[in-house]
Parts: sequence; structure tokens; C-alpha cells
Amino acid sequence: MKTSSLEAVRERDRSDPLGSLRSKFDPAPEPIYMDGNSLGRPPIASIEAVQRLLSRWREELVSSWSEWIDWPTRLGDRLAPLVGAGPDEVLVCDSTTVNLYKCVRAALSEDPGRRVLVGDASDFPTDRYLLEGIATETDRSFRLVPFNEMEGPQPEVLAENLAGDVAVVVLSHVNYRSGALCDMRALTRTAHEAGALVVFDLSHSVGAVPIDLEGSGVDMAVGCTYKYLNGGPGCPAFLYVRREHQHLLQPLWGWFGRKDQFRMGPGYDPAGGITRYLAGTPPIVSMATLEASLSVIEEATIPEIRRKGAALTEMMLELHDSWLAAHGVTLGTPRDPDRRGAHVAFRHEHGYRISRALIERHGVIPDFREPDIVRYGVSSLYTRYEDVWQAMTRFRACLEERTYEEFDGVRSRIT
Amino acid sequence: MKTSSLEAVRERDRSDPLGSLRSKFDPAPEPIYMDGNSLGRPPIASIEAVQRLLSRWREELVSSWSEWIDWPTRLGDRLAPLVGAGPDEVLVCDSTTVNLYKCVRAALSEDPGRRVLVGDASDFPTDRYLLEGIATETDRSFRLVPFNEMEGPQPEVLAENLAGDVAVVVLSHVNYRSGALCDMRALTRTAHEAGALVVFDLSHSVGAVPIDLEGSGVDMAVGCTYKYLNGGPGCPAFLYVRREHQHLLQPLWGWFGRKDQFRMGPGYDPAGGITRYLAGTPPIVSMATLEASLSVIEEATIPEIRRKGAALTEMMLELHDSWLAAHGVTLGTPRDPDRRGAHVAFRHEHGYRISRALIERHGVIPDFREPDIVRYGVSSLYTRYEDVWQAMTRFRACLEERTYEEFDGVRSRIT
Repeated sequence: MKTSSLEAVRERDRSDPLGSLRSKFDPAPEPIYMDGNSLGRPPIASIEAVQRLLSRWREELVSSWSEWIDWPTRLGDRLAPLVGAGPDEVLVCDSTTVNLYKCVRAALSEDPGRRVLVGDASDFPTDRYLLEGIATETDRSFRLVPFNEMEGPQPEVLAENLAGDVAVVVLSHVNYRSGALCDMRALTRTAHEAGALVVFDLSHSVGAVPIDLEGSGVDMAVGCTYKYLNGGPGCPAFLYVRREHQHLLQPLWGWFGRKDQFRMGPGYDPAGGITRYLAGTPPIVSMATLEASLSVIEEATIPEIRRKGAALTEMMLELHDSWLAAHGVTLGTPRDPDRRGAHVAFRHEHGYRISRALIERHGVIPDFREPDIVRYGVSSLYTRYEDVWQAMTRFRACLEERTYEEFDGVRSRIT
Repeated sequence: MKTSSLEAVRERDRSDPLGSLRSKFDPAPEPIYMDGNSLGRPPIASIEAVQRLLSRWREELVSSWSEWIDWPTRLGDRLAPLVGAGPDEVLVCDSTTVNLYKCVRAALSEDPGRRVLVGDASDFPTDRYLLEGIATETDRSFRLVPFNEMEGPQPEVLAENLAGDVAVVVLSHVNYRSGALCDMRALTRTAHEAGALVVFDLSHSVGAVPIDLEGSGVDMAVGCTYKYLNGGPGCPAFLYVRREHQHLLQPLWGWFGRKDQFRMGPGYDPAGGITRYLAGTPPIVSMATLEASLSVIEEATIPEIRRKGAALTEMMLELHDSWLAAHGVTLGTPRDPDRRGAHVAFRHEHGYRISRALIERHGVIPDFREPDIVRYGVSSLYTRYEDVWQAMTRFRACLEERTYEEFDGVRSRIT
């Protein structure tokens, strides 16, 4: 399809089967939000859920823990269908960083003789740093593979980097910069053929693209809930441990991971199943928002979400070609819709200044990634085709009018 | 003083210099809440603060991170005076368990040749389990000292258990069962004389008793914010690292602990100072409540809080002697007010059934700790002398009327 006019775009919104979900967020008309892949919008239901939670805390005080105690597993079970996992395979708890630490350390215990950790040199920072830290502390070596960022991790390149005794491979399903979506099943097979376990980071894919952890044979996974899942700032992350690996121990032996927690008995006797991957007390107030936001995503189906996400990003690519390319913008995202997630990277030598101008002059919120990427992300739950049209129109105006020249390129601490 | 009558008790409430703070919580008159040492009450300001935060998330979306990004350090600085720490020595982040893991692992790196970890056999479960886990993973040995629980850790007993190459000693400032308050300064000196570092868990003392980490020479500390600090269920914990130890690395190398976090550069280059003790994204919604609840505690002074806490627990001891002892209750808490925190342990062979009867028949919320402890905790910010009088009157009624016989002793999962 070609996006020919604003009227044609509005017609697409009117016939969008997910169009009614936008009202669950009741967004202000301005600015145009293209950064839901960094922090999703709050569903109205989430705001109401926190208010109910606070009332409960006030009225029932400590007795409320009889319900809250199950939230990590209950929310995990609720999230499981979004990642192709079964019951008792997913927990909501801690941050993505802490969960990745638990998973990688547990994975290493499967075969302590294997001494190499493998990651992606273009992966999100926390994933890279964490592998480096674990390699350092466990006296292992680690290898960050220079995958082609535009393609994401490729199985044949991974295969070339699995020589020696690789214990675990950590990869992101969707690259946080390019949006490249990798072939989870093929990569997992490649790693398994070399005897390594695979941990996937789903932060940039969960809630945006189909994920089949079970069918792909993935061993463990982590991911964040505040992007496409709209859980709220710093909402606790999730982790997945395939049932056959749940005997493995993670190193944070806290009271929430112990069998018969409230007996408070001597010695750590790990709980059965996924529960042993809990550590300390989970942040309940931040979880109330997640339960409500999951109820919104459950009103759609993942294929519908995927179809719309691909159409919205496709529209960005078309308008890039028509409007932006002539101004020196290049595409940093795969053109094949099957090979990308729900965000698009536009590269320009003045990318940082353009980001500032978009925010401060043009009423669009993108985000910026070093050294030159203006990133636009879409949520099938609340981004309209018209939003994309307007965000691209304003991007073009920024370039045509050179409004970015009003801004310097000195990085603020937050970009 | 002797507590002779309800009228005398009410007079004490009328002249209580902290009495007006109760209105900041606006508690329901019933039930009588004696478990604020497990989960503090919500200040009204905290509820308002969350509502403001949710509005901000909704209106300013990802841009709000320019403020939120500093919360772990800003809230840490705000909390620092309550524990006798300086600026840039305290962070609010993660759970107590995760923070204890970071601190103990960092402490071990100070002198890797030291191979023994020492803890308290009567400490809170997560502290014991965590030491066991770290000893296991680092191939060290650990020793849980059988301190007298009624006295808490004693320096002379600790000294006897520091033979060999002890790396780190983990102790709680106030015992979670007996309420025994230990001598932080003397214990720290004892550990230091043996060349060990000391990590204190302040979960049961912060906000209830004076704490002087700096003056006591303590190396590191952790603690929870949802007890006497009223931060809300699962509110993130805090950690303290004495400035001279801040060069040590903790093992969770996440993006929040890296220098120039948003440059997302290659390799982990730890941030200077306390910031390197951060790992992943902090749970912002759960932190909004904490900031507001700190503003309430800041309206009191720690000496006032301490004075009232000692008076409230003293009143419990007197009424125990007058009313409960004859029914087979014994005191599980030190009689010396300088040697106890703000909760009292009453022991009775039917303690569990009594706890259930207090909750379900008598309108009092205590908590229960195995095998026989009914625990009453007080908060100087909102517990009235009359509340203690009523809670003790009802305890007596439960024993006199033997209402606990209506309940069986089968433990529910939550106790």
C-alpha cells in the first residue's frame, strides 16, 4: 500500500480493528508520542488499579499480603501467553538486569566446565555489561560478536563464534537501535548444536511481535514490562525458565525463593519450580499497574498487534523514502517487515539536534540513540496511522526548515 | 511510670509531642494495628504523591525520566540522616535481599584471601540464606553464630567466632523476633579488630531507633523502607556504602551503575561513588510513596521517635507483667529499654492460635513468628498509648475467654 494523503491515512484509522483500544489510554492530542518503546503510556485502568491498591493498603494493611504474595507468579502466568510460555514458567520480579544476572548465573551452573559466555556487541548496554561482569567474577571469558546490527544476530555468524566451550549465549530478540528482529528458533538451534544454553532478552519485542519461547526451544529469557506492556516507569521485569531447567539454582538466595517461606526455617531449601528464581520482596505498588495494563493488551491478539505494527512501521519507511531521504536521512532498520520489530531508526549526522528540535519545536517525542539515531516507536494499542503521518510530516518540516540548527549538540545527561 | 488506667493513658496521648502526626495517616479507628513493623501504614501524602506521579507519567511521558533518573540518589541522600550517613553514601534501589547481595559480594572483594563469612543464627531468614548462597558460590565457608536471641549479637560472643580469616560479618541491628537492639559500635570494633568488614541490616531499626553508621565505623548497611519508614508494600530498599569502600565493585554490572549511562558505550566503566551500586531501572511508582513518607518522618526527630517508642514498649512490658504473665505468656524481648527496638515478642504455647483470635475476634492485628511468638510493634508516628492499652486489654481478654480455642494451629501459608 502507498500512503498518499492524510485523508487516506484517516480512513485506515477508521477501519483499524484495534482502533478502539486507544480510548483505554485517553491520550492528550499533543505531543505525538513516538517513544512508547521506551516508556509506554499509562492505561486508564492502571491508574485506577493503583488507586485500588492504595485503598487496600490503607484499609487492610498487612493482611493484604495474603493476596500480594502470589503476584510474581500470578502476573507471570498472565504474561506467559505473550511469550509462548506455559504456566509456572514465568515470574514478574526485580529488574531486567537482576533477572538476567539470575538466569545467566543459573545457566552457567548447568555445566561448570564450559568457560565462555557469548553476547552481541550491538546489544543493549545492560546485557553487555552484565555478561562482562559475570565473566570477570567467574573467571570465564566472554565474547561479544560483531553481528551486523542492521540484520541482528545471524545464525551462521553465531555458529562461527561458538568454537570452544561456550556455556551460554545471550541475545536480544529485537535490537534496541536498529529494530532488527532475529530468528529466535534458528539461533537457539545453532547454540544448542554447540552445547550452549540460550538466554533471550525480550525487552524490545514482548507485546509487539509474536514470541514462541517454548516452540523455539529457548532455555531462559528476561524482559521489561514498561515498553510495549505499558507497566509504568521501572515496573518490575519478568523472567522465563524452561521447565527442564528449573532445577538450576540462581545465586540470590532470598526468603521469597525458599520453600515454606514463612516457616523461616534454618538453611536455604529452594522452593520447587520457578519460585526459586524469586529473591526479595517484590515492589507491589509498581505491579498493580502491570496487572491492569495486561488486561488492555489481552483485548487484542498478538497477530493483530503484529499486523498493525508492521503496517505502521511500513508507513514510516515509505514516508522516509518520499520525504526524508532527500535531506540526508538514511534508514537504520530492516526493510523486510518480517525482520523488524515495532520501532524504526532514522540516521542523520545531526540526529541529536533533530531529536531536540522535534521535542521542543515540533511537538513530537522520539528518542535519540548515539551517535546519530532518531528512533520512532509505535504501539499498536494506541498509535494511530495519523500519528505516524504527523510525526513524519513534522520530521520533514524540521529538516526543511532546519529548525534543528537552533539547538546545539551538547548531550544532556538524559537522551 | 505506671500505667494505671485508660484515663491516664489518654492523658499521655493528649500531651504526646508526636500526637499530631497521627492525623497524617488518618487511620480507621479499628482494627488496632500492631504490625507497622511488618508493613507501615500509608501516609495520606504518599497516596497523593502516587496520584501526582501517575499524572506526570500520563502527561509528560518519557520526558519525566529527567527527574526520575536521580531518585535512587536523591532519596538516598534524604534517608541518610536517619541512619547517620553522609551525602552520596546511601542509595534507594532494589530489594533488601538484592542490596545485601551486592554489599556482601563487594565486601568480599576487599581481601579475596579471607575465606569465612559470619552471620547470626537467629537473624532474619533472607540474611542467613543469602550468606549461605554466597559462601556456596564463592567456595567460602560460613558460620552462623548462635547468639542469645534475647540479647542480640554480643561483642564478646562475636569475638570468639572470628578465628581464622573472616572476610565479612553480617548482623541485624534489631532482631526481627526478640526486638533485641545490639551495640553496633562495639560489634563493629570487634569485627574490625579481626580484620573483617561489617554489613548491618537495619530493616527493623531504621525509623525507630537512632543509628550512627558513620560514628560506629560500619562498613556497609542495607535496610527496608516499608516498615517504620512507611514506604508501602515492596517499596525499594536502601544500601549504605561507607565512602572509603566505594571503590569496591558489586557484581551486578547494569546500565544504571555505569559512568555516562546514556552514552551506552562499550565495556563496563563503573560510575564513581555510590552510583556504581545501582544495577537496573528502579521501580519509580513504588518510590513516589517513599519520598512522601520520608516527609512525614522528617516532621519528628529521631530522639522523639525513640523516646516515645521506648515508652510504648515499656507500657507493653508493664501490662504483660500485670495481665498476661499469669496466663502463661512470657516475654521474649529485653527489659532494658536501651537494648530493644520498637516491637515486643510475647511467647505462649498457643501463640499461633492467639494471633488468629486477635485478628478474627478481637480487632487487633499482631503478627506471628514461629514457633510461639505474638509480635506487637509500635510506630511513634501513629501508634497512640491508648492503642497499646487496648491491644493489651484485648490480648488479656483473648486469654481469659480462651477465644483462641476456636482456632486450630494449622499454619496458613502466610503468618
